Amino acid sequence: MIVERLKEKLGAEKVSISEAERYRHSHDESAHEAVQPDVICFPETRKDVETIMAIARELHIPVTPFGVGSGLEGQVIPLKKGISINFERMNRVIDFSPEDMTITVEPGITRIQLNEQINKHGLHFPIDPGADATIGGMVATNASGTTAVRYGSMRDNILDLEIVLADGRVIHTGTRAKKSSSGYHLTGLFTGSEGTLGIFTEITLKLHGIPEHIIATRCTFPTLEECAKGAYLILASDIPVMRMELVDASSIKQVNAYGNYSFPVKHSLFFEFAGATSAAKAQAELAKELMEDAGCDHWSVATNTKERNEIWKARHEMAYAFRHQKGKRFYGTDICVPISKLPDLVHYARELIEETGLHGGILGHVGDGNFHTLSLFDANNEEERKKAERMNDKLVLKAIDVGGTCTGEHGVGIGKMKYQQAEHGVAVDVMKSFKQLLDPDYLLNPGKIFES
Amino acid sequence: MIVERLKEKLGAEKVSISEAERYRHSHDESAHEAVQPDVICFPETRKDVETIMAIARELHIPVTPFGVGSGLEGQVIPLKKGISINFERMNRVIDFSPEDMTITVEPGITRIQLNEQINKHGLHFPIDPGADATIGGMVATNASGTTAVRYGSMRDNILDLEIVLADGRVIHTGTRAKKSSSGYHLTGLFTGSEGTLGIFTEITLKLHGIPEHIIATRCTFPTLEECAKGAYLILASDIPVMRMELVDASSIKQVNAYGNYSFPVKHSLFFEFAGATSAAKAQAELAKELMEDAGCDHWSVATNTKERNEIWKARHEMAYAFRHQKGKRFYGTDICVPISKLPDLVHYARELIEETGLHGGILGHVGDGNFHTLSLFDANNEEERKKAERMNDKLVLKAIDVGGTCTGEHGVGIGKMKYQQAEHGVAVDVMKSFKQLLDPDYLLNPGKIFES
Repeated sequence: MIVERLKEKLGAEKVSISEAERYRHSHDESAHEAVQPDVICFPETRKDVETIMAIARELHIPVTPFGVGSGLEGQVIPLKKGISINFERMNRVIDFSPEDMTITVEPGITRIQLNEQINKHGLHFPIDPGADATIGGMVATNASGTTAVRYGSMRDNILDLEIVLADGRVIHTGTRAKKSSSGYHLTGLFTGSEGTLGIFTEITLKLHGIPEHIIATRCTFPTLEECAKGAYLILASDIPVMRMELVDASSIKQVNAYGNYSFPVKHSLFFEFAGATSAAKAQAELAKELMEDAGCDHWSVATNTKERNEIWKARHEMAYAFRHQKGKRFYGTDICVPISKLPDLVHYARELIEETGLHGGILGHVGDGNFHTLSLFDANNEEERKKAERMNDKLVLKAIDVGGTCTGEHGVGIGKMKYQQAEHGVAVDVMKSFKQLLDPDYLLNPGKIFES
Repeated sequence: MIVERLKEKLGAEKVSISEAERYRHSHDESAHEAVQPDVICFPETRKDVETIMAIARELHIPVTPFGVGSGLEGQVIPLKKGISINFERMNRVIDFSPEDMTITVEPGITRIQLNEQINKHGLHFPIDPGADATIGGMVATNASGTTAVRYGSMRDNILDLEIVLADGRVIHTGTRAKKSSSGYHLTGLFTGSEGTLGIFTEITLKLHGIPEHIIATRCTFPTLEECAKGAYLILASDIPVMRMELVDASSIKQVNAYGNYSFPVKHSLFFEFAGATSAAKAQAELAKELMEDAGCDHWSVATNTKERNEIWKARHEMAYAFRHQKGKRFYGTDICVPISKLPDLVHYARELIEETGLHGGILGHVGDGNFHTLSLFDANNEEERKKAERMNDKLVLKAIDVGGTCTGEHGVGIGKMKYQQAEHGVAVDVMKSFKQLLDPDYLLNPGKIFES
């Protein structure tokens, strides 16, 4: 019935029930249990999305948007089955205005596809969650990553969203102006709503100039506390650092083995400074002085592009170094805390990892107070999975207790639902009332963020 | 009845019906018609605000929050009379954490009071709308100003709001973590809601390090178009400019006369570069080269703090230079457009000003595409006021037409209500449904943003 109706209204070539597609749309990169959709749609236009939504209303079928499945909290898993909407055919650039430093794209374009089209104009979209995620997915989870310390998260870089609402209305949440004080700020509300309030069909982004020069450096410290202190000095000095990442000694060891690197096995900060050549150099010089004040025992500058790329390739590989081990799955945490709490929380996370006996590492976007633990468990060992889960519980509750959040950038999805009440208190009721208002039949990605 | 109840529950010293107070709370700095509240309350705690809200519900009386009355769109004018809430006794710092670069304040603290308390720690709150507004008022209107090109607007600098809702619930919209992907982003939604969705009782802000060194420069161009081109080159180069302001020749003339300055009467860009000494110098050097490419015919660097302060003092005085003339009132526009449209719109604005025959100038936060026209009209000449109003209409509709917004930083209040439908279309209905959901009896600042 559903499939026939979809084929009739959309065209058969935009509808699939193949086993391969149902499998592909059943999971993301997390350890959350897979659920297969009944059917997958491949819309090519906003009209197609409106058609799908109309059928979903008519037949009362849940709808779950899907980008590339690189998420880490199960947002794309169609918990209540129904329709999975894959946006890979909606990956066009609708309007690119280099002189305005803005671009309007469809949600299915990935960040690397996007950058390929704009880099030649001296512009880039710098938000970098690691994976080559779709822009739609990145909006849905309010993604960020290594460059958030300079450019903020997705929410800070979106000017306008075109959204198909559950009831079929199509709205725009903003304009192409860089700032506005007009009306209620719907852009921020829909960003990070994980497909539960509406379906994005166009996204207008702020772009940034590619810096003339980039300098990559790395430095090591005897203790994690000194690492964190170093990071604080950078922030307080107002150096517009491009990236600043904390990697603990255990993670260095892991990536050395995985990628055949020979980084010193010590607690480290990885930096990128960017700007006009002279400005970037000046930033790096000042940073070096500050790090020496903070107790840094080794400062190393990449002297060429190869070395620079190696440093950041290694940093990006760290998550993979943990995740991609045969027979193993990983459980990741994503807390974000006030900067001053970072040393304590990193220390606590290390203790928890050791308590579990699992192999695990710590990687941190230290400029934001956001860090991840990655714990490996045996895919067939329920006891190990539970250990990792319990560790996550403890770490998240501690983060909330010190004024932080359960998720800095991965989103709530399935895994962080249970912490919503603890983190947001009465505000959860307000959030739920918005959901109820905009999607009274719970057709949009039901079972995510809140119970449906 | 209202007054007795308020005195009984709050204490008589927190309630006033004096003529002086009723006058003070009847208007802001705009030309919108004054309306006096029935009574003014001076809460000292969140509990007091909850008490006021409970009485408002019980007696069905509208409530309008008031900061210092420096707004420019009539947000504080109690259109339906009732209670004006003045926050001047709620101006405490609740929690200051220099190491986290965050501060939690009550809404009545002004931005200068705030900076006085934190500057000695090497930190500042850089959002600068010109006036010494309260932080609560700046949140309510999503204020920004000359530093938005570097630091964004208020919305980008708020971590958490404590809010008393119309029904008495008290919520927190965020945490003290620098970023989060947890739950719906209520912080963004309430910022800029102008007292129509809830009443702020605590505000947690991101702070920034005071740059080691600041360089102020100013340069002149033969045409406005070249000014705008120069600004674009700065943005595209990714120079983290601290301030970048466009001032047209006519406004230079006005401020020269007002403040006894001798700036060359030409279209100008005013800059501030900031950072480590060497980095700021490098930025200024690069900017100079870029401006020469753009056709700049004069580049002048302030060589000492006195000169630097003079440049920015003059920039801040420009609005006053227009506003504060005896027997005159002013009508200000506040459009914000995609950067590439700026030269056209500035040109169009100049034409419109000349068409009206009124005396007026143009001042722009050119890095954001936001600029103001200031037109003087005779306070007793209804025809002149109408001319200024019609000019505003034309300019706003043109701005919306090219993808911009009716208000970049002043907010909707009374004056921009009539453009909400044109700018937001169907999204206005969604906004209204949020208002209806959170304040079904229209007790909170009725008659602002939307018709009540």
